Amino acid sequence: MSKTIDFYYDYASPASYLAWTQIYKIAEKHGATVVRKPALLGGIFKSAGNQAPMNVPAKGRWLNQDIQRFVERYGIDFKMNSAFPINTIYLMRGALYARREGFIEAYDKACFEAIWVNDKNMGDPAVVTQVMLDAGLDPKGIGASMQDPEIKKELFEVTAEAVDNGLFGMPAFIVDGVLHWGQDRMDFVEEAIS
Amino acid sequence: MSKTIDFYYDYASPASYLAWTQIYKIAEKHGATVVRKPALLGGIFKSAGNQAPMNVPAKGRWLNQDIQRFVERYGIDFKMNSAFPINTIYLMRGALYARREGFIEAYDKACFEAIWVNDKNMGDPAVVTQVMLDAGLDPKGIGASMQDPEIKKELFEVTAEAVDNGLFGMPAFIVDGVLHWGQDRMDFVEEAIS
Repeated sequence: MSKTIDFYYDYASPASYLAWTQIYKIAEKHGATVVRKPALLGGIFKSAGNQAPMNVPAKGRWLNQDIQRFVERYGIDFKMNSAFPINTIYLMRGALYARREGFIEAYDKACFEAIWVNDKNMGDPAVVTQVMLDAGLDPKGIGASMQDPEIKKELFEVTAEAVDNGLFGMPAFIVDGVLHWGQDRMDFVEEAIS
Repeated sequence: MSKTIDFYYDYASPASYLAWTQIYKIAEKHGATVVRKPALLGGIFKSAGNQAPMNVPAKGRWLNQDIQRFVERYGIDFKMNSAFPINTIYLMRGALYARREGFIEAYDKACFEAIWVNDKNMGDPAVVTQVMLDAGLDPKGIGASMQDPEIKKELFEVTAEAVDNGLFGMPAFIVDGVLHWGQDRMDFVEEAIS
């Protein structure tokens, strides 16, 4: 039977970007299905009593180099974002709208690449509009969804579900009820779906 | 030219134990030299503004499972210690004495295995004495070193050097001035010495 990978992510997180570049290839190789769970990293940190790694200066310095080593290993494009950290609450709401409307794949790609390849400040609504236009997506519908009470509630719910499932950071993966945290644990995810 | 791996560790840390079981094999395979740097994890956390992962309950739950997955991957013995977390300040002082006197290899093995294989409470001096006797080491000399002002100073200095070198946790490795943090980064250490 085909396995399912719940993939929790936030565009704000460079490690979520790294995971996004790899997890679909891994899933495809083993005939597994990825279920997208866009959630709010800040909300998870707060609920779990955790903090961003970059809040510990020495950890932040190491992490920047560690990310670069994985970028080379994966052979992907990456540029640290000049506006980091970006508040992604509006973008994550848009992701849930995109998921509902069936264009989440294109939306994920537009957001992740804007932030982590093209150094766009996606905290700026004008930049978001342009990025959506460039991706062939509808900035009006997406923009409206970012103020939609139902979508707001849904983001709250997915984030609460993440915490209920044991998350304390992202990216994270759940396979058969087991939590794997971090883009550096995709080998365990692969073992779990093999 | 043969490379050097500075290996920073504390017996208190299960991840340090995991690293200890593997790093010498990796070094030997590539003709590299491991330089032992016993340091105080609590001191590094304090200086770097970091905290123990177990302080975040959800992270602690994940970490216990993650350790178990690596234990299976490495094919090693492991048992979570009943007295965790153990205050290892005396043991780490003993490690510096053992390093000076040339029996650090046997001392590391005695301490790591007592805590992470045989579930000994190495915070208890009577237990330490028995473990040293069982390992054929001299508990009197070791015990005296734990109150030696020079050894105390040396532990303070190694820990300060660790922080100066960018450490915010352990185990950690430095190769050619580059910091690799975590037992899950020994693949990068191996690349660096290859």
